[in-house]
Amino acid sequence: MFKLIRNGIGFWGPDRTVGPMHLLVDGDTIAAVSRNEIPAPEGARVYDLNGRLLLPGFVDAHTHLAQSYGRGIYDNRHLTQWLWTMIRYLHLDEDETYTAAQLACIEALKSGTTTVAEMTSLGVNVDASVQAIADCGLRGVVSSCLGDYQEGDNPAPPLDAEGVLEEMTRLHRQWHNSHEGRITVRLSPVGLPACSEELMRGTRALADELDVGIHTHCCEGEIETQNAYERFGCSEVEALGQFGVLGPDVQLVHCVWLTDRDRQLIAESGSHVVHCPSTNLKITDGLPQMVPLQRLGVNIALGCDGQSSSGSYDLFKEARLASLLGKGLSADAAAFPAETALEMITRNGARAIGLGETVGELTVGHKADLTVIDYPQVHLIDEQRLLSNLIYAGSGGDVDSVLVNGEVLMWHRELLHLDEQAILAKALKQMRRAARILPN
Amino acid sequence: MFKLIRNGIGFWGPDRTVGPMHLLVDGDTIAAVSRNEIPAPEGARVYDLNGRLLLPGFVDAHTHLAQSYGRGIYDNRHLTQWLWTMIRYLHLDEDETYTAAQLACIEALKSGTTTVAEMTSLGVNVDASVQAIADCGLRGVVSSCLGDYQEGDNPAPPLDAEGVLEEMTRLHRQWHNSHEGRITVRLSPVGLPACSEELMRGTRALADELDVGIHTHCCEGEIETQNAYERFGCSEVEALGQFGVLGPDVQLVHCVWLTDRDRQLIAESGSHVVHCPSTNLKITDGLPQMVPLQRLGVNIALGCDGQSSSGSYDLFKEARLASLLGKGLSADAAAFPAETALEMITRNGARAIGLGETVGELTVGHKADLTVIDYPQVHLIDEQRLLSNLIYAGSGGDVDSVLVNGEVLMWHRELLHLDEQAILAKALKQMRRAARILPN
Repeated sequence: MFKLIRNGIGFWGPDRTVGPMHLLVDGDTIAAVSRNEIPAPEGARVYDLNGRLLLPGFVDAHTHLAQSYGRGIYDNRHLTQWLWTMIRYLHLDEDETYTAAQLACIEALKSGTTTVAEMTSLGVNVDASVQAIADCGLRGVVSSCLGDYQEGDNPAPPLDAEGVLEEMTRLHRQWHNSHEGRITVRLSPVGLPACSEELMRGTRALADELDVGIHTHCCEGEIETQNAYERFGCSEVEALGQFGVLGPDVQLVHCVWLTDRDRQLIAESGSHVVHCPSTNLKITDGLPQMVPLQRLGVNIALGCDGQSSSGSYDLFKEARLASLLGKGLSADAAAFPAETALEMITRNGARAIGLGETVGELTVGHKADLTVIDYPQVHLIDEQRLLSNLIYAGSGGDVDSVLVNGEVLMWHRELLHLDEQAILAKALKQMRRAARILPN
Repeated sequence: MFKLIRNGIGFWGPDRTVGPMHLLVDGDTIAAVSRNEIPAPEGARVYDLNGRLLLPGFVDAHTHLAQSYGRGIYDNRHLTQWLWTMIRYLHLDEDETYTAAQLACIEALKSGTTTVAEMTSLGVNVDASVQAIADCGLRGVVSSCLGDYQEGDNPAPPLDAEGVLEEMTRLHRQWHNSHEGRITVRLSPVGLPACSEELMRGTRALADELDVGIHTHCCEGEIETQNAYERFGCSEVEALGQFGVLGPDVQLVHCVWLTDRDRQLIAESGSHVVHCPSTNLKITDGLPQMVPLQRLGVNIALGCDGQSSSGSYDLFKEARLASLLGKGLSADAAAFPAETALEMITRNGARAIGLGETVGELTVGHKADLTVIDYPQVHLIDEQRLLSNLIYAGSGGDVDSVLVNGEVLMWHRELLHLDEQAILAKALKQMRRAARILPN
């Protein structure tokens, strides 16, 4: 089944020159991308973009979707207080989890995100989260968020290392490569501050056995990062390296509190870093320095993280902030230009989560995950400045249409496969009823 | 002529509780605001908001509107290089200036901004900028951007102190209190690094004579701020104080490089600070610390600044960034909550530019400058979290309707008084033709 996406514009070549772009989709895959008109194969459905901008679908390299029900009610708390509040209050049953994740998936789709790397939160139902991603039509690299070590005053973890590894194995067996291959599974020990050496080493062994990557938090908070020296006699990153949790199949989320040696280790190991600037600022994790990592050749992707920490699921906001913050903190105005910001939410994101050969570029053979931007608009002009305006002036509301795996999920801002109003109404009802999720 | 704006919701009281809101406009003024239905006076036009959120129109306390033609083409430059590039390239004739400013006014209106404090740029036509604001229906506090002292390698200023004061006087005579009172004039010596003591003292005398306030850049760049010690033997803020350019009628823009003593002087004098976080980060001015100023009681407003430095005219972007950056830089997660961010773009903005008794609040007797937000949406729910979601997840595209001075300028995103497409087409043509504004 062919789809011809005609009459768009796109960024071409290393200079990102704007020019006409036509694209042919064969089933779930990009079959052709051309500056010239592509003749419609027989029986092809034709979608006319009327000069709109065609981009690779955005990749959100770190989410906790069901935290959407915690948004806006856990504000103004530092990481430790915020986590304490969320652990104590944000417990959702299966149906609530499903709807909360749907709500986040809709926000993601409406702002151009086609792939989410979901580390399902504590306190919610993992399978319901994954089901929501599958039913909403997104591509998902999914994992549980589990630890086996009691961190600070937090409650004791319900599972030991063996239990966590069993649960990871179950999730993999149940979901990996399901839903036309849209859903794949990674392993996610929540992060070294809440994991034992045994769990980390076990995760590496299991990852090798299952041939899937590892998704973990790293050096988010100052105190948590410092604690590694007492527990392991070295930095958190050094410890992760010793336990096998560095490498090209590893995505390290946050990386706020790194030493120069940590940066070297991350770069040498080929590990990927997922930067979540909105969360880092909002819950005062610290000031994440990403430019020095990039200069060492580290691949940096972006994540909206959970809405209860970042406040939104809109990669435009992360891309703008990553660029501005990168420049500001490095005092280098040439750092993280608009081109890099766009890479971070497309190609870099795909590479970070192990989908570099699958999505993140408009390339023949890649999956047809596409985001279409309304153009021209008063804040998105003109061709010479379009990429800059997209990053610095754009927002999720500028997304016109979205395809995932060759399926048109949104067309002219209407979701074709979901009843947005019904889901919104159900979510509102649940959020208002669930007084237990409010802090005292 | 009455207008009844019925069936909205709004924030009530110090807790910003969400509740029904109905509002009556009499001519250009708010005549009533109520939780209860207001009977429509005879002959009133009735506007039904269908549950949308009613806010005071946003106040952008520092703009250079005609820099819209420089957007996206002067990226990745530090303040000094950026300024050099703009001074050299961004020269617009009268018609170009008018259209460039129109383009910016449309972007402002479409993102909820009803008042701009415009410091017209060098290299453009002042009167054409002001005419565009007037014709686009916005409220404008306008001023020229002039100095009389040669700063660094920049070109010698065309006017001496007397010439600048004459031009300020002319602008005042021509425009002050014009267009139903929507246009008022302030005095804006560009900033101490490009002004003589004579000009600063003359500005104070003229401001007192004309009874208008002063709008000036202050401590934006590190080197420029340091130079004050050589020129005046004291800090820039101390020098401004000596020359009379501190006080409740003064708005100081940027304030990145302040000493503790500077902060005290600003607070004691009752001067207002206009924070432009996007610009500060994008052209690496430094990391602006606004929380310590707020703690001293200084009124802090926000500005989108020129698009060629900030990349956008959308106060939602500044409000979100100000909140996140305030938290991040102060390491205080409770600093600059969503409530404060909204204040910064409404009431604080109005106070900073001398319109505190006129706009910035939904108060009887204030001018009817109103911004209506589409609600509910997937990222703007629900009542308990609405203010947080508005600040952290909202964007200009969520603005549904706008009134200025009692006139409905935008309704359901359609500009009623302007031909948006024609202006956009003209601007595109001019921007593409004006190759001289591109850097080599």
